[in-house]
Amino acid sequence: MALKTAQQYEDSLRKLKLKVYLQGELVDNPVDHPIIKPSMNSVKMTYELAQDPQYEDLMTATSHLSGEKVNRFCHLHQSSEDLVKKVKMQRLLGQKTAACFQRCVGMDAINAVDSVTFEMDNKLGTTYHKRFIKFLTMMQEEDLTVDGAMTDPKGDRGLPPSKQEDADLFVHVVERRQDGIVVSGAKAHQTGAINSHWILVMPTIAMGREDADYAVSFVAPADAEGIFYIYGRQSCDTRKLEEGDIDVGNKQFGGHEALMVFDNVFIPWENVLMCGEYEFSGLLVERFAGYHRQSYGGCKVGVGDVLIGAAALAADYNGAAKASHLKDKLIEMVHLNETLYACGIACSAEGHKTASGTYLIDLLLANVCKQNVTRFPYEIARLAEDIAGGLMVTMPSEKDLRHPEIGKVVEKYFRGVASVPTEYRMRILRLIENITLGTAAVGYRTESMHGAGSPQAQRIMIARQGNIEQKKELAKAIAGIPAQ
Amino acid sequence: MALKTAQQYEDSLRKLKLKVYLQGELVDNPVDHPIIKPSMNSVKMTYELAQDPQYEDLMTATSHLSGEKVNRFCHLHQSSEDLVKKVKMQRLLGQKTAACFQRCVGMDAINAVDSVTFEMDNKLGTTYHKRFIKFLTMMQEEDLTVDGAMTDPKGDRGLPPSKQEDADLFVHVVERRQDGIVVSGAKAHQTGAINSHWILVMPTIAMGREDADYAVSFVAPADAEGIFYIYGRQSCDTRKLEEGDIDVGNKQFGGHEALMVFDNVFIPWENVLMCGEYEFSGLLVERFAGYHRQSYGGCKVGVGDVLIGAAALAADYNGAAKASHLKDKLIEMVHLNETLYACGIACSAEGHKTASGTYLIDLLLANVCKQNVTRFPYEIARLAEDIAGGLMVTMPSEKDLRHPEIGKVVEKYFRGVASVPTEYRMRILRLIENITLGTAAVGYRTESMHGAGSPQAQRIMIARQGNIEQKKELAKAIAGIPAQ
Amino acid sequence: MALKTAQQYEDSLRKLKLKVYLQGELVDNPVDHPIIKPSMNSVKMTYELAQDPQYEDLMTATSHLSGEKVNRFCHLHQSSEDLVKKVKMQRLLGQKTAACFQRCVGMDAINAVDSVTFEMDNKLGTTYHKRFIKFLTMMQEEDLTVDGAMTDPKGDRGLPPSKQEDADLFVHVVERRQDGIVVSGAKAHQTGAINSHWILVMPTIAMGREDADYAVSFVAPADAEGIFYIYGRQSCDTRKLEEGDIDVGNKQFGGHEALMVFDNVFIPWENVLMCGEYEFSGLLVERFAGYHRQSYGGCKVGVGDVLIGAAALAADYNGAAKASHLKDKLIEMVHLNETLYACGIACSAEGHKTASGTYLIDLLLANVCKQNVTRFPYEIARLAEDIAGGLMVTMPSEKDLRHPEIGKVVEKYFRGVASVPTEYRMRILRLIENITLGTAAVGYRTESMHGAGSPQAQRIMIARQGNIEQKKELAKAIAGIPAQ
Amino acid sequence: MALKTAQQYEDSLRKLKLKVYLQGELVDNPVDHPIIKPSMNSVKMTYELAQDPQYEDLMTATSHLSGEKVNRFCHLHQSSEDLVKKVKMQRLLGQKTAACFQRCVGMDAINAVDSVTFEMDNKLGTTYHKRFIKFLTMMQEEDLTVDGAMTDPKGDRGLPPSKQEDADLFVHVVERRQDGIVVSGAKAHQTGAINSHWILVMPTIAMGREDADYAVSFVAPADAEGIFYIYGRQSCDTRKLEEGDIDVGNKQFGGHEALMVFDNVFIPWENVLMCGEYEFSGLLVERFAGYHRQSYGGCKVGVGDVLIGAAALAADYNGAAKASHLKDKLIEMVHLNETLYACGIACSAEGHKTASGTYLIDLLLANVCKQNVTRFPYEIARLAEDIAGGLMVTMPSEKDLRHPEIGKVVEKYFRGVASVPTEYRMRILRLIENITLGTAAVGYRTESMHGAGSPQAQRIMIARQGNIEQKKELAKAIAGIPAQ
Repeated sequence: MALKTAQQYEDSLRKLKLKVYLQGELVDNPVDHPIIKPSMNSVKMTYELAQDPQYEDLMTATSHLSGEKVNRFCHLHQSSEDLVKKVKMQRLLGQKTAACFQRCVGMDAINAVDSVTFEMDNKLGTTYHKRFIKFLTMMQEEDLTVDGAMTDPKGDRGLPPSKQEDADLFVHVVERRQDGIVVSGAKAHQTGAINSHWILVMPTIAMGREDADYAVSFVAPADAEGIFYIYGRQSCDTRKLEEGDIDVGNKQFGGHEALMVFDNVFIPWENVLMCGEYEFSGLLVERFAGYHRQSYGGCKVGVGDVLIGAAALAADYNGAAKASHLKDKLIEMVHLNETLYACGIACSAEGHKTASGTYLIDLLLANVCKQNVTRFPYEIARLAEDIAGGLMVTMPSEKDLRHPEIGKVVEKYFRGVASVPTEYRMRILRLIENITLGTAAVGYRTESMHGAGSPQAQRIMIARQGNIEQKKELAKAIAGIPAQ
Repeated sequence: MALKTAQQYEDSLRKLKLKVYLQGELVDNPVDHPIIKPSMNSVKMTYELAQDPQYEDLMTATSHLSGEKVNRFCHLHQSSEDLVKKVKMQRLLGQKTAACFQRCVGMDAINAVDSVTFEMDNKLGTTYHKRFIKFLTMMQEEDLTVDGAMTDPKGDRGLPPSKQEDADLFVHVVERRQDGIVVSGAKAHQTGAINSHWILVMPTIAMGREDADYAVSFVAPADAEGIFYIYGRQSCDTRKLEEGDIDVGNKQFGGHEALMVFDNVFIPWENVLMCGEYEFSGLLVERFAGYHRQSYGGCKVGVGDVLIGAAALAADYNGAAKASHLKDKLIEMVHLNETLYACGIACSAEGHKTASGTYLIDLLLANVCKQNVTRFPYEIARLAEDIAGGLMVTMPSEKDLRHPEIGKVVEKYFRGVASVPTEYRMRILRLIENITLGTAAVGYRTESMHGAGSPQAQRIMIARQGNIEQKKELAKAIAGIPAQ
Repeated sequence: MALKTAQQYEDSLRKLKLKVYLQGELVDNPVDHPIIKPSMNSVKMTYELAQDPQYEDLMTATSHLSGEKVNRFCHLHQSSEDLVKKVKMQRLLGQKTAACFQRCVGMDAINAVDSVTFEMDNKLGTTYHKRFIKFLTMMQEEDLTVDGAMTDPKGDRGLPPSKQEDADLFVHVVERRQDGIVVSGAKAHQTGAINSHWILVMPTIAMGREDADYAVSFVAPADAEGIFYIYGRQSCDTRKLEEGDIDVGNKQFGGHEALMVFDNVFIPWENVLMCGEYEFSGLLVERFAGYHRQSYGGCKVGVGDVLIGAAALAADYNGAAKASHLKDKLIEMVHLNETLYACGIACSAEGHKTASGTYLIDLLLANVCKQNVTRFPYEIARLAEDIAGGLMVTMPSEKDLRHPEIGKVVEKYFRGVASVPTEYRMRILRLIENITLGTAAVGYRTESMHGAGSPQAQRIMIARQGNIEQKKELAKAIAGIPAQ
Repeated sequence: MALKTAQQYEDSLRKLKLKVYLQGELVDNPVDHPIIKPSMNSVKMTYELAQDPQYEDLMTATSHLSGEKVNRFCHLHQSSEDLVKKVKMQRLLGQKTAACFQRCVGMDAINAVDSVTFEMDNKLGTTYHKRFIKFLTMMQEEDLTVDGAMTDPKGDRGLPPSKQEDADLFVHVVERRQDGIVVSGAKAHQTGAINSHWILVMPTIAMGREDADYAVSFVAPADAEGIFYIYGRQSCDTRKLEEGDIDVGNKQFGGHEALMVFDNVFIPWENVLMCGEYEFSGLLVERFAGYHRQSYGGCKVGVGDVLIGAAALAADYNGAAKASHLKDKLIEMVHLNETLYACGIACSAEGHKTASGTYLIDLLLANVCKQNVTRFPYEIARLAEDIAGGLMVTMPSEKDLRHPEIGKVVEKYFRGVASVPTEYRMRILRLIENITLGTAAVGYRTESMHGAGSPQAQRIMIARQGNIEQKKELAKAIAGIPAQ
């Protein structure tokens, strides 16, 4: 049985012994913590929809290892069609959660690690790929959520790992033993870490010989000895602790990031996937980032769909649905959102097979995709805030609405068109607030900006992949200048 | 003595008997409520700086009524130089508070009401201007903060006041008595209402004969019988209730908006400034909005200065200050911010005298100013989020930093350049979060969008003031087409 | 033999008896007219590359009618792979000509007419599809260039065809005879008309019953009795008449548009493809426009490649190649250009089969593609002008460079880096001028704006295809509002 | 008599013995050459309007030297009011010519040279300022047009003057004699050079000790021995040689740039204004560029007014004036144009007195102004092209319209609304073409981009003037970080 039910997923998390700090407290039971639970619900949706025949084609795939049906998040892409379906699955999940559903980092990590370990073994005679396939087999069989962990804290951005004052600012091997390695350091911004069964650690930048100890990749159970987590704050996070379900904007779903600390963690050799092969760290980063930049052409588009819908409802509820400038703004939002989707689809459709058989997206277009994601969601959000009106941030609280006396006043004065209950209007405005300013803004804005690499990282890749030299030759041919 | 000290201002507020609801509770003492107090501090800064000889030229003016020195917020602009100084004062206060300091609505209201009542009296033989001057004399003498209250809830945007299902959706006269009038309704989005001594109510749109009851303007004490307030929620508002001073981003300053409800409030005739003269409501809106659109070319620029400085520090603390792309982004932020300032200055320098002697900004340029304010702060915020990095939204809480055990881990892993304490880095990132996503985002983003009228309102004015017909004649002359 | 050589194409045009007016003269031999010839060369390139084994996969396809190899411009798309290859072929040709190669309108017309006549016959019992297939068979066998003619002059944009003062402002049936119909009117902006063997006329807008005479589609030889052409002026067109080959910017290639007039032209029934079925005119427009909007995601990207290459060379020749701001501008140009390509690829990869078996692009994404084309080439051109420097428009003429005395001065003072001949620098700057301001700007700018429909036409389609109602339901589900 | 009439100006030019090459020919009589004359007409307008009482306040000023009325182009700004009037005068002239009227470079040069020579003399004990005032006195008395000549050819942008392969790539002193100096080199992109009486040469960049020979400034008659000119080509320049007056777009007005060559030109000491004082070359560049960047906030706005008017007429003539999207585009054009104007006004209103008494603009805002000018005219042009429609570039020539036979066809098919003659529609579209693609695009686009310094030059100044360090202190104060 390779597919867990949603409930089985939730139960399986309860069995983990994660050590999680949240706002100065060691959390007893992360699964049921009101600040964490909505993010768990988002991951859970990846299990739930996989059970739904309606979405089977997008949500599941046939494992090239076992021939069994597996959740697509555990699958290695076997065709460009698989790459396209990945993007469509992500859009679907964005639509259903209006949040980051977190499971993509693991999917993108296994696809990157597969081809890189294969090529590394081919070149260096190592045997990492076999270990990886063993892990993947388990991951598929048990339908695991895996945290693909790449980003180190990095300390001083002007210095390489080996020059930092504190060696732990990049995860590194502190001891090589006969049975395995011991690692220390941390991974920052870990999306969905608390909702994962295993973690797959990868190095974070291209490295030189002097950084060999930092060129380390491995898998480990999320609750391995020596690993602990510090939960990140989000805008409006404590609204999840309040009574009621309006002010939070999105009661059911959310996302999270955490710092994942490795305090002398032992990793047996069978779980080590790179150890010192610094010349392959850059390739692994490039591939993981490539896949993950593709991902944003799906998930953020799905959230964008919800935001567009919410803005359209806000206009309806204001009695302004016919204003031509509002219709035009909704068109612009759709246009920008679909441009992102087009980039996600295009880098997938233009994918190609790597040596291991796994399909890789077109790297140039995937970077172009992500670069647009660092811009358009901000403009979509701006337009949503335009359509929503100032009420979005001047409305009173749900407690005021529920107040025996004041509630009537709220009802009276915050009504838009007479046919729509004031509560509905408040709900829609709070949802827009949630995505543009609140907890989901972390996913829709900041993650769009920095997830899978900050804007400048894509520009460097675009420069590298853009083939300016060939373009110069085209221009010379037209201008009548001899080719070099 | 026409200038209150900061402390006198604070004390004077404590004497008011405001009825304020906040998150379902009737607030006992608004001045000291931790959610409200930061907004009061911002207003207080307008008193404090007026006492500082360094800022005297910007913060104070000589009353044309008394010849005394008054706070510029109580002053009628006597020259285009006054208009320019107003903008500079607003930029200064934005720099000092990084928040909305709320007192502008009153200043803009008195300047608009002055010339409109003067012209109305001239045309209709009414005597509103004299009443207004009496009020203004008191306001200057007592150095009052006045809430200029314009925006009605409006209900269904597709319907005029008189066609709404509920008549109260626009403030209106419910009874005309010998000694005064009785009004009901509400004003929404009231910036700084809770920190004001008096309110100056104005109608919100151009009206027709059938809306005459809604064409009403008056002044009233903020704690008059029948007036009460419901405080608006802001993103991250409850962080102000937490211990510590980092996570809140801006411990000392803030802004607020509230719903102001008029439940059969009696207004004696001496305080009534318009009552039924619907043909002047549009002019009053146009003038108030014009002044207020000018204001944004000052205050938002000041907040922008803080945000640019914070982003530059974030880059420093990351060890990335020399990266050319970051330097370029800071230049872009400055460029956009100064473009807003240029618009604020230009509409002021091009101001002209109205019939009452008060100076009015250039309306076209003031609308152009505000239209840019609906765009550039969003791009400045986007660039700040780019420079800040993802840490801004994945960092743990101050409680984690202060935690006896975990605190060291936070210190260790969230350090940037070794020479800067981790706490400083967290402080700066929380400030950027505050302005782009948190409580101050309400002022820096949403208010920039909707304050003083939503973007489309400016476009209508630009169309009206842009003199397209004259431009057509210019084109005909060049193209050799006979003039009409 | 279904593929003409380039020379055969040129010769075949010489056999036509086209009646063409150009700048007040009836042109004797259009093929060799120096203003027209460069545009002919661009079309010729579609024949030349089809003979090149290197490009065979893109330039040719296997006819679903004959099983023979045909030029892809004569092919009905049999798969989404075909749609993708179309876009890649167009990018290739844009790269090779830096101009509009004109043959796409015919390709897009046959693909649209195929499925629409098929569906029309199915619904109405007409027999247009059979006639069309007969024409297509000839087109493929003879490797014809066909002008897909849609846009009518339209007169007063506020009026439908039947309400225009002059009935001829839309092509219409003036007589129905036993052997055929007689049509009058004109088609404006006819790209490549003078370089075509046949024309395929289509109606230009959705129509109502009263416009039935205007719902007419047919094929006709380009030199049929009663058809004549008036050639459009382009910026800098007469530079083609000058000696030398520098100032013209692109000596070999160009594009053109012309007015095509029908003066009582007789069309035998076998060539009539729609005659009065007004309810299908909208569908035909939508499909043709959809295909043509896809096309721009290929051809304009190819021209963009040349412009990027030229700008990069200009920077090299200026000695400024290492300036970080210039590198960044080149990255931005690549980014925008590839975004257009991504849209072209995505709408193709997401294509689907129509009832006739021909594949149609995804209409939403094709409209999104074109909408971006109305923006990004303008920004790419702006950046190119930035990089090029002012010299592009202040340089003296080639005659000055060739002047026995002054030539040395030109050589001396317009040299950039010492290693590059001044002439090369002038050539590259003239090429940039050609694409941004000169004859090719007609294709790269104005055609990007208005070809295949002006920007607003795409926005209407995006509104229609964007499925806002479904997005509202997504938002309600998240916000906790009952579905309708 | 300090004001020349327009005719006197024209006649005075005829008396000059300029040596001008144009397209490989030595021009006999530049004033009456059909390609040059329209540019002369633009300068002439600066004389004509100065005679018109309606414009006297803007076009003339009272000389601080003589107390006489002088043309404002010969005036040193004595107040910030003068700076504001300068911008308004420029807008007016842009409106009247829809072209570059060229005389600003001289005005900006004298204002910069005045304060810099004054400060140089103060510091170094030189006597340049007295010489300058003598020149200025003549310039005012004779109402001269002076070409302010700054930009050298520069050769390899990566190298300073003294490191270029060819020393002449920057103007420099080749001999110091008792009676004066001998200079060689060239100035590129010289706006209005052929229409000037005198030239005022300035160095082009900040220089070091090794470049002292290049730190040279002087005045010379435009027809001094050893000076000659090579005229620059413009897009569509030869349309001015054609019969008719439609296709050229703007029959009467234009602009020009030329290469100005100094072949061992002798300059008597009394005309030398800097000679070796390299440490002042940067200041002179900064001030001239500052004034000239201000200028663009006037002149380009005036041209923008014409373009907006033309676009509005095009919409009218198309019968599309009521379409909401077109109205919105016109609003956007006005908005962008007025933003430029606001920047021009603001940097003027914020001007301050220099040591010599001449007023200098606010440098930060002037650079912000110009930076916007490198962007917004491009967007205004794009919107104009959107509104104009494709016909702008597919229309036949005026010869076709005048053709005895074909003329009727042109009349018939290119008519828009029935009430407007086809010729008018063609005229307006040709005017839009002229400004966006034709000869005037050189002024409206490329000059907006590169005139007064390319975009990056402004960014460097914005970085320098933006006071980021003070902004950091503001942020620290808010964030609770100790000041440095």
